[in-house]
Amino acid sequence: MTNKKELLVAALENGTVIDHIPSEHLFEVVSLLGLENSDNSITIGFNLESKKLGKKGIIKIADRYFHKEEIDRIALVAPNVILSMIRNFQVVEKICVELPADLVNIAKCPNPKCITNNEPMKTHFKVVNKEDGIVKCLYCERVFEKENLIIR
Amino acid sequence: MTNKKELLVAALENGTVIDHIPSEHLFEVVSLLGLENSDNSITIGFNLESKKLGKKGIIKIADRYFHKEEIDRIALVAPNVILSMIRNFQVVEKICVELPADLVNIAKCPNPKCITNNEPMKTHFKVVNKEDGIVKCLYCERVFEKENLIIR
Repeated sequence: MTNKKELLVAALENGTVIDHIPSEHLFEVVSLLGLENSDNSITIGFNLESKKLGKKGIIKIADRYFHKEEIDRIALVAPNVILSMIRNFQVVEKICVELPADLVNIAKCPNPKCITNNEPMKTHFKVVNKEDGIVKCLYCERVFEKENLIIR
Repeated sequence: MTNKKELLVAALENGTVIDHIPSEHLFEVVSLLGLENSDNSITIGFNLESKKLGKKGIIKIADRYFHKEEIDRIALVAPNVILSMIRNFQVVEKICVELPADLVNIAKCPNPKCITNNEPMKTHFKVVNKEDGIVKCLYCERVFEKENLIIR
């Protein structure tokens, strides 16, 4: 069965596996992490069967690990995804991504009059309700649902 | 080595494998085929090592086969990709995608004055030089490089 063998994707020796991504957010996560312009070998699974999510996505990136800020960007569109850091085929660390308490310079404020949209400065939102994804801009003090933020 | 097993992606039982996609066009092909909105299980490999292309991409779509018009759209951005139709783990047909002689209603004419941009009608280009990807609009008769066409 040479065909069968040819169709297998190799296991990840070193890198990051991002798992349990809701399928509808998979390509958003790809784009948020800038993976289209990456030089790393990447495997993506889309609409895979998942007992928990119905359909899920998974991304495996060889030889790359992510910073906290990058993980926070993912949290904004797809909280509860699981990042596994792989070294020598073994999971050495697992992170369950969750919305952090503060979102610093990750998203634009939807209020056009907010000073952060009119001065060259970092944005800063406090997450006031993690379950429902409610955030508050520290500058204009307006409250938004996280779905309405525009990721920078 | 349960970790290793978990990271393998299953072979395709039925569906289409699109192979030898130049990496820089991989996400364009995903988008041209509308795969982001597909319900099929899809596996994507990006920046995989290839002797012929340096880095290549591969897309495997379960339980889906493509029409000629869809394949012609791929040909416009990524000629020479290879489509394999899989049934019961076996390749039953292989197509080497090439630019067809006629591109009917696949791309917009870059000439804003062309009648096809001003009337509700199909566009039609003749490929006048396949190697260099030179096409001619049958209506305004202007000649373009295929890279300058805007895919509909």
